[in-house]
Amino acid sequence: MQMLDLVHRRRREGLETIMLCAGQPPTGAPQAALDAAAASLHESTLGYTEVVGDRELREIIATWHSQTYGVDTSADNIVITTGSSGGFVASFLAVLDHGDAVALSCPGYPAYRNILESLGARVIDLVCDADTRFQPTAAMLEALPEADRPKAVIVTSPGNPTGTIIDPAELERIARWCEDNGAVLISDEDYHGMSFGRELASARQFSDRAIVVGTLSKYFSMTGWRVGWLIVPDELLTPIENLQASLSLCAPAISQVAGRAAFGAPARAELDGHIERYRAARAVFLEELPKIGFDRFADPDGGLYLWVDVSSVTDDSEAWCKELVDAIGVALAPGVDFDPINGHKWVRLTLCAPEEETREACRRLGRYLVR
Amino acid sequence: MQMLDLVHRRRREGLETIMLCAGQPPTGAPQAALDAAAASLHESTLGYTEVVGDRELREIIATWHSQTYGVDTSADNIVITTGSSGGFVASFLAVLDHGDAVALSCPGYPAYRNILESLGARVIDLVCDADTRFQPTAAMLEALPEADRPKAVIVTSPGNPTGTIIDPAELERIARWCEDNGAVLISDEDYHGMSFGRELASARQFSDRAIVVGTLSKYFSMTGWRVGWLIVPDELLTPIENLQASLSLCAPAISQVAGRAAFGAPARAELDGHIERYRAARAVFLEELPKIGFDRFADPDGGLYLWVDVSSVTDDSEAWCKELVDAIGVALAPGVDFDPINGHKWVRLTLCAPEEETREACRRLGRYLVR
Repeated sequence: MQMLDLVHRRRREGLETIMLCAGQPPTGAPQAALDAAAASLHESTLGYTEVVGDRELREIIATWHSQTYGVDTSADNIVITTGSSGGFVASFLAVLDHGDAVALSCPGYPAYRNILESLGARVIDLVCDADTRFQPTAAMLEALPEADRPKAVIVTSPGNPTGTIIDPAELERIARWCEDNGAVLISDEDYHGMSFGRELASARQFSDRAIVVGTLSKYFSMTGWRVGWLIVPDELLTPIENLQASLSLCAPAISQVAGRAAFGAPARAELDGHIERYRAARAVFLEELPKIGFDRFADPDGGLYLWVDVSSVTDDSEAWCKELVDAIGVALAPGVDFDPINGHKWVRLTLCAPEEETREACRRLGRYLVR
Repeated sequence: MQMLDLVHRRRREGLETIMLCAGQPPTGAPQAALDAAAASLHESTLGYTEVVGDRELREIIATWHSQTYGVDTSADNIVITTGSSGGFVASFLAVLDHGDAVALSCPGYPAYRNILESLGARVIDLVCDADTRFQPTAAMLEALPEADRPKAVIVTSPGNPTGTIIDPAELERIARWCEDNGAVLISDEDYHGMSFGRELASARQFSDRAIVVGTLSKYFSMTGWRVGWLIVPDELLTPIENLQASLSLCAPAISQVAGRAAFGAPARAELDGHIERYRAARAVFLEELPKIGFDRFADPDGGLYLWVDVSSVTDDSEAWCKELVDAIGVALAPGVDFDPINGHKWVRLTLCAPEEETREACRRLGRYLVR
């Protein structure tokens, strides 16, 4: 997020910047959510909600999840969290003891690693590359030495920073491996709703002992509202509710009211339109990146990102990204944020900018690279 | 918070309940904050703010803190958090390693203990009673055995559950003890702005190495908005910013915009009016409680609570509170939530209910006790 702060500071100084560094839709909340928020300002004192969240929102999410994935998800298993960030902290504290091992893909979302390390957990990297479309497999888990057998496994599909989707059959194998080996599967489904065609499965289709993490920040285009949710296995409901009572009290009340409306048909039609914009940005990158010399990248199946090998021009992606933002006003996320092993040779782009800005960023990059 | 959830469930079932169990103003946000929130729905996409929070809000809080306490607090030292809850988690993770000791008052706010224990810290109870007006002293810290010397000390003034205020001279002695003994003072100033007359000091008046915790939830009457702040010593700024980037990304955007307006003169006039209501509820309790047989309690100097010895009627405050809510529809918070040692003989009442409801609760209690 340091690059994002840099962009905020540049903008305050009036410096124009194309932001390809943050997983943030450029759009706001759907109109129906804004209308619901506006009404709530008059209709409610917006005090604390129940610790596990607004009951109506929990029912809506349960129905949505059940219908989308053909499962039978109960509102009783939904816990509303302050963004999915809040859900990760609570899940980790509920599942892990000090020193426990957690397996996750590398590259992967940096907050997992940072939170886990701050809690004293031990991160086991599942090194992923093009051979498995940058996603972990059950075979990787099976190959771990006994000493590294994890207490929890995190998967993210569509991936961050890669945008790739785990095939349902592989997700099922991972879920089975976790059940067979006493590990809790934590399935980060933050980018669900955002597929460019490939089938997306929820971990709950294969295991009712998995924790599913969701959010209003991505498909629902409500980043700053800070609402996420967990689908919690029965045996973890009490520990997670107790943790939430101390860690957060509740998620923001107005955001929970707005969130209810984001699942309605009018909002969904608006939100599905955004996917077409991400699809267009992806098409621009797939066309332009090879022309400017970047022909190794993860082709995103969904989500908001494109993970690009920039080893032809740098072996210090962090320095290179800082150089770029100063030189051409294009902000990318350095790969080191996502991959402590090979990230110095990679960057993450986002599909969030409008198509014309995305083209302009490619033009600037192209000109900069032929200096 | 289990009692609060019980109240929510009762109300959904149409069961009338007088809620004296939650530290939640019955009022909503001040009108100016609601207006600012309404405007922001049209004026902004309400995406992520900077990790450390909206710059304008940070400036406003720094100015307010500087003017209120006659200190020189910089916006650079302010980090906006998701409620003060978010500030505690970040502070604890920044300051503590696994197994470190933290000294805090008993009785005290249960979330400290719960969060600390979930993080593997060791809680050192500073047992407080009427002799020190239910607040810890530097002498208590000095008396700790070497093995229990804390890495951090938490003080809360006005207190939760006691409402008592630490005298400025004592707070200064505690701050000095912490500096002299390598402990970080974490001063929970969530109830500042809510004094019934006694002088309230900020820890920053005595130490720029203390962490100050603040919130919009109490004086500012914006509980469900989930905005708090930390005033962070220079040496902890980077660790806390890094933690926040992973733990929360940012506090809710709309709440930060609304929060700016809560510090303005029109909002402050409205909020100061609420204090008169708490003062009135306090007066009712001070008059009525002795009449119904409860004559040992902490007389609140400020804040939202009254801590009452109920040992004349129960030695199981949790069971008694559940009995009360069923029998007479009055919800109190059982003392065991706040004090694992003596809490079975105490309950916490809040000053949040309207005066007439407060009187009615006393009447029902009186009738119930003479059954």
